[in-house]
Amino acid sequence: MRRFVIVGQTATASSDFSLNDVAGTSGRLDILLRCLRAGLLVSHGLRADSVVYLVLLGGPMAPRTLRVEGSCAKYLRADERNLGGLIKSVLALPEVDEVFGFSKPGVSVARGGLDIVLRDMGPVTPFVLEEGAPDVRGCSLDVADPAFFVGDHLGFDEATREALRALGATPISVGPVSLHADDAITLVSNELDRREARR
Amino acid sequence: MRRFVIVGQTATASSDFSLNDVAGTSGRLDILLRCLRAGLLVSHGLRADSVVYLVLLGGPMAPRTLRVEGSCAKYLRADERNLGGLIKSVLALPEVDEVFGFSKPGVSVARGGLDIVLRDMGPVTPFVLEEGAPDVRGCSLDVADPAFFVGDHLGFDEATREALRALGATPISVGPVSLHADDAITLVSNELDRREARR
Repeated sequence: MRRFVIVGQTATASSDFSLNDVAGTSGRLDILLRCLRAGLLVSHGLRADSVVYLVLLGGPMAPRTLRVEGSCAKYLRADERNLGGLIKSVLALPEVDEVFGFSKPGVSVARGGLDIVLRDMGPVTPFVLEEGAPDVRGCSLDVADPAFFVGDHLGFDEATREALRALGATPISVGPVSLHADDAITLVSNELDRREARR
Repeated sequence: MRRFVIVGQTATASSDFSLNDVAGTSGRLDILLRCLRAGLLVSHGLRADSVVYLVLLGGPMAPRTLRVEGSCAKYLRADERNLGGLIKSVLALPEVDEVFGFSKPGVSVARGGLDIVLRDMGPVTPFVLEEGAPDVRGCSLDVADPAFFVGDHLGFDEATREALRALGATPISVGPVSLHADDAITLVSNELDRREARR
């Protein structure tokens, strides 16, 4: 199983943002919505082998984390407006537990941040996307359960950096140009697709 | 200069779509908006060496084509809502010529489809994104002016296919999985970035 964990430093954990201006009212949750598309959607379908976690560290309800599973998610469409609507409805749940429970097919939310993601994932081989790190094309990715940690437009906060160091996450990069987080996810997914096709 | 030409078979050439539901009211112009982001936007800036053409073949005003130049475009933001607003305002122009004239910084519109794109680009080395074609990683891309033609969710219509054949466009693919058009653009851009960095 492939896992992508996107940490939104300011992305809101509550539903009080406007679907008519997600970028301006949600602490840049729009960035995470694009990551969700890149991680799970392909032409005419979903990646059944992928799970995306959106760690929401912004707003009064933070921290909360969304988990979206390609194997059982439904009604995911590629456009930001629709993805935003889905996420908004899930975040509208007044109270959530520290354990992921489904609230929409394939979509669940839990109270907590990176800590509950790590607990939920169980044993994985962690990688962290970092500019200037060794190229993903040269990295060994032949592991059963890779998990890729991705920052938002602000990168990672220091607490997350420290947690990823403690986890022993392997730094990887996706090329010479500094790209949006969703593009980085697209590039990692493509590299994994190619490795699997060669096996 | 890099050029990406995305052909939207149903994407509307008029401004009468709703920003609150671009995917549902514009003939899937949202797909082309995501291609625009993928082709031009990087972390904290624009690709000054890239131009994106959106060929709009849907609706009563079709065909019309938008040209967005990374070297001089302004106010481009990554989220679909903002990109949709920009494009809507440009498409609201009541009459347009067959020659591209700027209506917003770096953004212009002209009456016509693939024919005016080819005339506007001048001499280029054409490539066409096709599933199952030779892998872009193995292709010679060391040309001054590559132009990449990309279909939407419906692929290419037969007239466009015929025009691309007549042009002698080289078929390339981006991997073993069928991806969204914006992901294909991200992957081609990354390959070009890597080639340039190695030079």
